[in-house]
Amino acid sequence: MQRYFIKNNAIIGNRIRIMKEDYYHITKVMRMKINDLVIVCDEKKSWLCSIQEITKDTVILNILEEIAEKKELPIEVSIAQGIIRREKMEEVIDKITQLGALYYLPVQMERCNVKINEDKLDKKIERMNKIAKEASEQCHRTQLLRVNYPVSFMDMLKLNTQYDLCLYAYEKHETTKTLKEIFSNKKYEKILILIGPEGGISDEEAKLLDEHHFIPVSLGPRILRTETAPSYILSVISYELEE
Amino acid sequence: MQRYFIKNNAIIGNRIRIMKEDYYHITKVMRMKINDLVIVCDEKKSWLCSIQEITKDTVILNILEEIAEKKELPIEVSIAQGIIRREKMEEVIDKITQLGALYYLPVQMERCNVKINEDKLDKKIERMNKIAKEASEQCHRTQLLRVNYPVSFMDMLKLNTQYDLCLYAYEKHETTKTLKEIFSNKKYEKILILIGPEGGISDEEAKLLDEHHFIPVSLGPRILRTETAPSYILSVISYELEE
Repeated sequence: MQRYFIKNNAIIGNRIRIMKEDYYHITKVMRMKINDLVIVCDEKKSWLCSIQEITKDTVILNILEEIAEKKELPIEVSIAQGIIRREKMEEVIDKITQLGALYYLPVQMERCNVKINEDKLDKKIERMNKIAKEASEQCHRTQLLRVNYPVSFMDMLKLNTQYDLCLYAYEKHETTKTLKEIFSNKKYEKILILIGPEGGISDEEAKLLDEHHFIPVSLGPRILRTETAPSYILSVISYELEE
Repeated sequence: MQRYFIKNNAIIGNRIRIMKEDYYHITKVMRMKINDLVIVCDEKKSWLCSIQEITKDTVILNILEEIAEKKELPIEVSIAQGIIRREKMEEVIDKITQLGALYYLPVQMERCNVKINEDKLDKKIERMNKIAKEASEQCHRTQLLRVNYPVSFMDMLKLNTQYDLCLYAYEKHETTKTLKEIFSNKKYEKILILIGPEGGISDEEAKLLDEHHFIPVSLGPRILRTETAPSYILSVISYELEE
């Protein structure tokens, strides 16, 4: 069933107002009619709703019942990634939304060969959040992935206090652990995972990551492209914690 | 180090001849010179080689030593998938090459909304095998993923005798197992995994799959797009068997 994310203020008593893009999607793309059913989420709850009224700019939904859904990873996973080309970033956002991540954080790193154009940044982030919203709806999530504004590598390091586990994908260290070693030992609630840009993580960055208690992890014996690595880790987390 | 796959007949004694596309890559893209080092694989062995001579159409390599590499999944995994759009198929081939699959088999299924144009089929398969070769080189594999010609659903079913485990991604069945149930029980040597096309697997197809001893498996609580599902399963196989 088609699913839409709404803001709190769209709910008035037992009714939900749908406008703008979702209005367009319901009326023009899906061509729904009065009494058709949809699912609506506000990221805390989900409801089964029927279409009560369609005006020229608003769909009014009638809440039929709350739905108990268990679609989210049992832990909070943030993916930080060295900045990559826009198309690849959009691919990653689409994939990690399906796989249950909650935050995506682009990071300015030494070997990034892509420059962020500050002028159009608002538009780009908005577009990426829209991709995340559409993927969340399609894969039946009850929460949205948030795409953050890019941060410096140093600012990313300081996030370590907000997570109970920080990892980075890195083959080269003697201390590199397997994901099995990480996940068989202990349960975590909030994980931050850094994936390097296409050029990889520099020695200096690896040193700083170690000093900030990020643990280097291996993703198997083949070299994964930067856009494949987040899916690998999230699939493994889903497998270990959800099945 | 840059890596090239060669055919057997390129090896003459202690020398290897590189021509055509790989010649172009070494001389024009990488701009390598005499004495530069490359790795060469013939899918059975890998060698460290130095460039001995560059002519107008051939690079002659000198084999320095054989390299022992363990880059392949310890089991043989084939991904069968309902036929999807070319761009998505190419994305899947790139991803599953990085994740260690050995065969990719497009399958004509009831809900495929893409028609294969038989006229240009040779060219398309050739192009996809080229994508697989490039991805294999980049992710340091020692074997190539093979892209097969499309087969009918009925012909795919008959492959079950060639594998010791056949799975299909399917949420709806009461008998659907988790991947954890599959992989914690037993070790397998040759696995075939069917992923439905964008429209999914029909009830009739599911019934036939069951009759042919394909086991329905769940890939977690979110609905994955058809192009994401193969990566999920292969990541889990890598995690369970390689780490």
